[in-house]
Amino acid sequence: MKNVPLAIDVVEAKASRIDSVDFENLIFGNVFADHMMECDFKDGQWQNPVIKPYGPIQLDPSAKVFHYGQAIFEGMKAFKDDEDQVWLFRPEANIERFNISSKRLAIPEFPKEVFLEGLKTLLNLDRDWIKKGFGNSLYIRPFVIATEPGVSASPSKTYKFMIICSPAKAYYSGEVRVFFADKYSRAADGGVGYAKAAGNYGAQFYPTNLAKEQGYQQIVWTDASTHEYLEEAGTMNIFFRVGEKLLTAPTSDRILDGVTRRSVIALAEEYNIPVEVRRVKVAEIVEAAKKGELKEIFGAGTAATINPVKGFGNKGEKFELQDQEDSYATFFKKKLMEIQYNKAEDKFGWRMLVEKD
Amino acid sequence: MKNVPLAIDVVEAKASRIDSVDFENLIFGNVFADHMMECDFKDGQWQNPVIKPYGPIQLDPSAKVFHYGQAIFEGMKAFKDDEDQVWLFRPEANIERFNISSKRLAIPEFPKEVFLEGLKTLLNLDRDWIKKGFGNSLYIRPFVIATEPGVSASPSKTYKFMIICSPAKAYYSGEVRVFFADKYSRAADGGVGYAKAAGNYGAQFYPTNLAKEQGYQQIVWTDASTHEYLEEAGTMNIFFRVGEKLLTAPTSDRILDGVTRRSVIALAEEYNIPVEVRRVKVAEIVEAAKKGELKEIFGAGTAATINPVKGFGNKGEKFELQDQEDSYATFFKKKLMEIQYNKAEDKFGWRMLVEKD
Ligand SMILES: Cc1ncc(COP(=O)(O)O)c(C=O)c1O
Ligand SMILES: Cc1ncc(COP(=O)(O)O)c(C=O)c1O
Repeated sequence: MKNVPLAIDVVEAKASRIDSVDFENLIFGNVFADHMMECDFKDGQWQNPVIKPYGPIQLDPSAKVFHYGQAIFEGMKAFKDDEDQVWLFRPEANIERFNISSKRLAIPEFPKEVFLEGLKTLLNLDRDWIKKGFGNSLYIRPFVIATEPGVSASPSKTYKFMIICSPAKAYYSGEVRVFFADKYSRAADGGVGYAKAAGNYGAQFYPTNLAKEQGYQQIVWTDASTHEYLEEAGTMNIFFRVGEKLLTAPTSDRILDGVTRRSVIALAEEYNIPVEVRRVKVAEIVEAAKKGELKEIFGAGTAATINPVKGFGNKGEKFELQDQEDSYATFFKKKLMEIQYNKAEDKFGWRMLVEKD
Repeated sequence: MKNVPLAIDVVEAKASRIDSVDFENLIFGNVFADHMMECDFKDGQWQNPVIKPYGPIQLDPSAKVFHYGQAIFEGMKAFKDDEDQVWLFRPEANIERFNISSKRLAIPEFPKEVFLEGLKTLLNLDRDWIKKGFGNSLYIRPFVIATEPGVSASPSKTYKFMIICSPAKAYYSGEVRVFFADKYSRAADGGVGYAKAAGNYGAQFYPTNLAKEQGYQQIVWTDASTHEYLEEAGTMNIFFRVGEKLLTAPTSDRILDGVTRRSVIALAEEYNIPVEVRRVKVAEIVEAAKKGELKEIFGAGTAATINPVKGFGNKGEKFELQDQEDSYATFFKKKLMEIQYNKAEDKFGWRMLVEKD
């Protein structure tokens, strides 16, 4: 597609659904903006993308996505500042990861320029769906599914790329307590854990349900071989604050290289918060908790930005964390949001303006 | 659904597509019989199943199957004997495994009686699609997909169960050489490897493509932690014959409990072929090959029944296997097919007749 001029067909919705939406009471990921982007892969290449009214898609029941989970996705957000300008946060990192995920799932990579141009056109059409105010955003969900009909386990020859968008309020899911995995696991060495592969998520639902029955909202996954090292949560990377020090696991082929995680590490360095990226033992966190040295645990991910954790469970033992006056979680969340909403200088060049058409 | 009387709606196709199908030149899994079974789960229960003409389904682009791979499937076959009777092979084993897979993916289990009654009704409608003759069969693909719209990573509240059927010729995929995995892996301890979860299959496409570039058609997966033990192939369990002895890995939470595998083990015992179900070391197979003691490798799975392997690669070394006059692979394939096609006594009670309506 490199040398093909970009032609994005736009079919505008006849009427907007926006007036039927209660923006004060949004449930995360449940309502979708008026338009979506669609681009099909066939005959060995991506065809011309189309932006059109949000609506259902039709597939053969034997489409490979249904049978072989050949599908990947991304999650990113657009923010509106006080001047009605719309901003993306590090979109190039998401596009890069989108193609890393695609490669691992044997899905053809999607051209970066088409992705970004299409997304900007889409956001301009649905500008009104992005509400001003700290915490409001438009959650953006790009994804690719394998569409070829046929029940033999081999890569599809056709795919559908889509971007759909969902308005979101500040993510607050109540107090979060996490369970350290000691039996189930999320990813294998040499597997697809580092990719946003669809199958990684469905595989977590059952163990997470079991954890919920024990009073935990999320699982912190540990390495599958020994369960001795803490890795990441379902849709967040995890940070531990022991004393003044911040700890987080290095990325690997089991762990998603989160954009929020990377941003937290950069901010920590900027603000002289000591941060160690290294394997984190379950045992050391439990010991720190017992000694009163474990000050905070928080998750970092696009949906919640920073999600403080109130307590954790490990092999039958339960631990509660005290609120911190000088909370790192609160600090990073504020710093990130100030950049995202164009309220602070953007030293790192993380913001990208979505120019009006 | 236990106490609800079974009401299967049947909508017959106006015209059959069967005359347009070239049964001599079928590609596996590419053509579908006239009818399909569909059953939706909503409001906490499975609704009345419908059998209707094969055709596309419509889903919201945010349906959870696309994003979170919450989907499982089965693979089974129907056979026609010389008297035009139609037989299933151990269908209860597949239905049981279907629900084991469902449970692991947090999908509601499907009632066994509805599954079996629906399948039989479907097969009766599409009887003509099952051709007589050794090797011909109707491949049956039951599956469930998560249909609830919404891009938040949590179990779906609605599902679609379907059965689609594809006529198949004797499976012959050319000479098969396999590669012993030494970097990539298929499943983690505590993961979903033992389930027919959609995501398990898409995750194998990329490493399998790499193996293909090296001249191997399939990968034999090894344990993810050490790569020292041989586990199973993409859609087959694997047997090794060393001298007169047959070796195969025990099932575990990483390995699918194959119906064909179980049947081979039962036949081996019946016919006094020494069989050891135990962890099989890569090193011992390589050593046996070097000593000339490795007589055969074969895969066991529904699609191919028994798939002899011509050679294998391990860390840069290539090995070829000699054809055996008294091949176990040939023996088991014959024994299994005789039972499947009602040409031999069915000591184990594996055949199930599909009575004409
Ligand atoms: C498994 C997993 N880990 C971590 C994250 C956080 O990544 P990011 O900060 O890029 O959203 C996500 C969500 O995207 C995820 O799915
Ligand atoms: C991963 C895997 N292993 C083994 C098998 C063989 O199982 P069965 O003999 O029940 O078809 C299959 C296919 O069903 C499979 O998908």
